[in-house]
Formats: sequence, structure tokens, C-alpha cells
Amino acid sequence: MAPTERIVPHFREELEQAKARLLEMGGMAEEEVRLSIKGLVERDKALLERVMRGDGPLNSLHIEIDNRCFMLLALHQPMAADLRTIVAAVKINTDLERVGDLAVNIAEAARRYILHPPVKKLIDIPRMADIAQLMLRDALDAFVQRDTTLAQHVLNEDDKLDALKTQIFRELLTYMLQDPSTIEPALDLLLISRHLERIGDHATNVAEDVIFMVSARDVRHHSGDPDPDVLPG
Amino acid sequence: MAPTERIVPHFREELEQAKARLLEMGGMAEEEVRLSIKGLVERDKALLERVMRGDGPLNSLHIEIDNRCFMLLALHQPMAADLRTIVAAVKINTDLERVGDLAVNIAEAARRYILHPPVKKLIDIPRMADIAQLMLRDALDAFVQRDTTLAQHVLNEDDKLDALKTQIFRELLTYMLQDPSTIEPALDLLLISRHLERIGDHATNVAEDVIFMVSARDVRHHSGDPDPDVLPG
Repeated sequence: MAPTERIVPHFREELEQAKARLLEMGGMAEEEVRLSIKGLVERDKALLERVMRGDGPLNSLHIEIDNRCFMLLALHQPMAADLRTIVAAVKINTDLERVGDLAVNIAEAARRYILHPPVKKLIDIPRMADIAQLMLRDALDAFVQRDTTLAQHVLNEDDKLDALKTQIFRELLTYMLQDPSTIEPALDLLLISRHLERIGDHATNVAEDVIFMVSARDVRHHSGDPDPDVLPG
Repeated sequence: MAPTERIVPHFREELEQAKARLLEMGGMAEEEVRLSIKGLVERDKALLERVMRGDGPLNSLHIEIDNRCFMLLALHQPMAADLRTIVAAVKINTDLERVGDLAVNIAEAARRYILHPPVKKLIDIPRMADIAQLMLRDALDAFVQRDTTLAQHVLNEDDKLDALKTQIFRELLTYMLQDPSTIEPALDLLLISRHLERIGDHATNVAEDVIFMVSARDVRHHSGDPDPDVLPG
């Protein structure tokens, strides 16, 4: 067995494992977001506190995936499409960890919010959460299927989140102006709507990485000095 | 000349160029933050609108650096310390782009804020901005000098930002409760303080990447199947 083969076992398998772990991480992050919003809507203190404490597994998985990607780069020195996939995985991994952080932030704001009487019936915030979670799921599906059409769809969905966020802001501002006792809880709802918007931004980042991963030119066909301008951005 | 040498020219030089461009990007991002806060404090509409329009060069540089890093990985297949540096550069590049976006967000909120009479004299927000900018500069210096002590210092500074943010929140809440006419502009100040906090978070990310880059074990010394658990996180 040649030395390079000995240190480069099962590249394909290990890349698939890293991708599988990344999907698992996406599922976990999405579930934390879902639970944080469920805790908000149902005013479930115990559930919210569980989400607040619960990002340990996500953080461990983030480190594990980062290491897996780094090992793939270091041991296998992959080229072209595989290299782009691994670089995309490193970035997507970071985005998913932030989504987990944002779920914790949502739970923290919701935990404060339920100390007050409800400001209003919550309709638009759960709707924002549904859209953000679906964007995330679609972006990860687009990653696995290398589907740029689906990735582009995710980018388009972001406008819906923006529109809902603006609508929520206007509505809550009205409440605050009419009744100062709503100011403090309304601020937490505003914060939650911004956290959801940022989850959508992370889904957008993932979708952009997918488009780069699939559509970039094969740089190995490019000889001589690197010319960054020739690559699509 | 061997074929590998032909396609692998000047690795060291190109890596230094990528790092130099990254520093340049850091300087630009920091300057945009500085100008957005200057525009806020001096209520300078024209300056704020310049910042709002001005992230084109940063976005171009972000793409250029991403491509440079990708080319370095693809053409040179670097090992160990160099590989860690390039992976760190890819991540840092993303953080710096977000800082540029946040400067635009600050300018947008400030642009709305100056439509109203001042809520208060601005002291803590410029202080937060100073800390966040210094954290960013120190984190990039730590990257260049491979200085984990400085990187650790950046991580510690984050508590100061958190404390100021909480103080600003309490103070603005008091204003809003006392005088509803301050609610709308106070919300923009709150938003700006959160944007500054997030700039500090990005500086923290950079510092963490520096620590990983400098202190991770050389995975090339590790033979056999990758075992992600052996790498420090």
C-alpha cells in the first residue's frame, strides 16, 4: 500500500459523514428554534429554560464538524468540487452554531416576556419562525442536493421575513406609544423578531455558500498565478 | 521545473498578500464603524448616507479574499500551520464582512434617529464603539502576530461591551417610560447598541480563530483515521 493511501483512507466516506453530521446539526438548531417559539407562545417557563441551557450538544457538534472538515483538508488535500464542498461546510457549520445561539437568545427574551401580561396575541412571530425554519431546512437540502434553484428560492424568501419584521415593529410601536406598561415586554418581542430575522440571514448565507459551491469554476483548470477576478463571486 | 512547482508559485508571497488584504479589509470595516458613530454623534446626515451606500468596496474585497484563500487551498494544498491560517482567514473574512454590514445598519438607525430631537447626550454608545473597534483591531493584530495572549485579551474585553449595553438599555427604558415621545428614537439607540455588541462578537470570533490557528495540534502528525476528538476545540 502506498504511503499516501495509508493516510488517505475512505475520503468519500468521511466527507459523507461530515455532511451527515452537518445535517444533524441543522436539524438540532432548527428544533431549538422551534422549541424557543413554542415556549414563548405557550408561556412555558420550563421549556424556555431547557432551551437556554441546551446548546451544549450543538456546540460540541460544531467543534466536531469543524475538526472533521479540517482533517479532510489536511489529510486528503481535496481538489475542486470536493474542496468547495468542504469550505462551504466550514462556513455552514458556523452559521448553524449561530442559529443555535439565537435560539438561546430567543428563549432568554421569551423568559423575560412571560413575566409580564401578554402584550398581544402572537401571530406574526410564529409565522416568522416558520418561515425562518423552512428557509434553514431548504438551504440545507439545497446543500445536500447541490440544488441552486432551491438555494435561490431561499434567498427570495428573505423578503417575507423583512416585511413581517417591519409589520411587527409598527404594531408594537403603536402599543408602546398607547400604553407605557407594554414597553418592556414589547421590547422583548421586538428582540425576538430581530433574532428570527437573523436566523433567516444565516439561512441566506448557507444558500449563498451552496450557490458558490455548485457554480464556481474548477480552479484546478486554471494554471499560473491565481487571479481572484476569474472566479465568480 | 517539476509540474508541481509550476502550478505552485510563490506560495509564501501569496499567503502574505491574502493576509495583507485581510488587514486592509479590517481597517476599512473599522473605519466604516467609526464614521457611522461620528455621523450619529454629529447628526451628520450626509456622512450617514455615505456609510449607508459605502459597503461596495468591502463586499468586493470580501469576495476577493475568499477567492484568494480558495486558490491557496486549491493550488498549493498547504499543510498544518499554513492550512490552519488559511481556514482562519476564510472565517475572519466572513466576520469582517458582517462588521461592514453592521456599520451600514448603525448608519441606517442613526439616519432615522436624527429625524427626532436627541433623546440624551450620547456618551456610552461612543464608548461602546471605541471598545468594539479596539477589540477588532487587537483581534486582527493577534492574527498577524499569532499572539494568543492578545487574542485572550480580546475575549475578556467582551464583558465590558455587555455591561455597557445593559446600562444603556436600563437608561433608555427609563426615558421611554417617562416620555413616550422618546420611544421611537430610543429604539434606534437600543438597536445601535446591539449592533455594536455584535461587532464585539465578531471580534471575539476572530480572536477564537486566532487561538485555534496558533494552538491546534499538527494534524499531519496524526496517522490513520481522523479522530476529531483529539483536536483541541
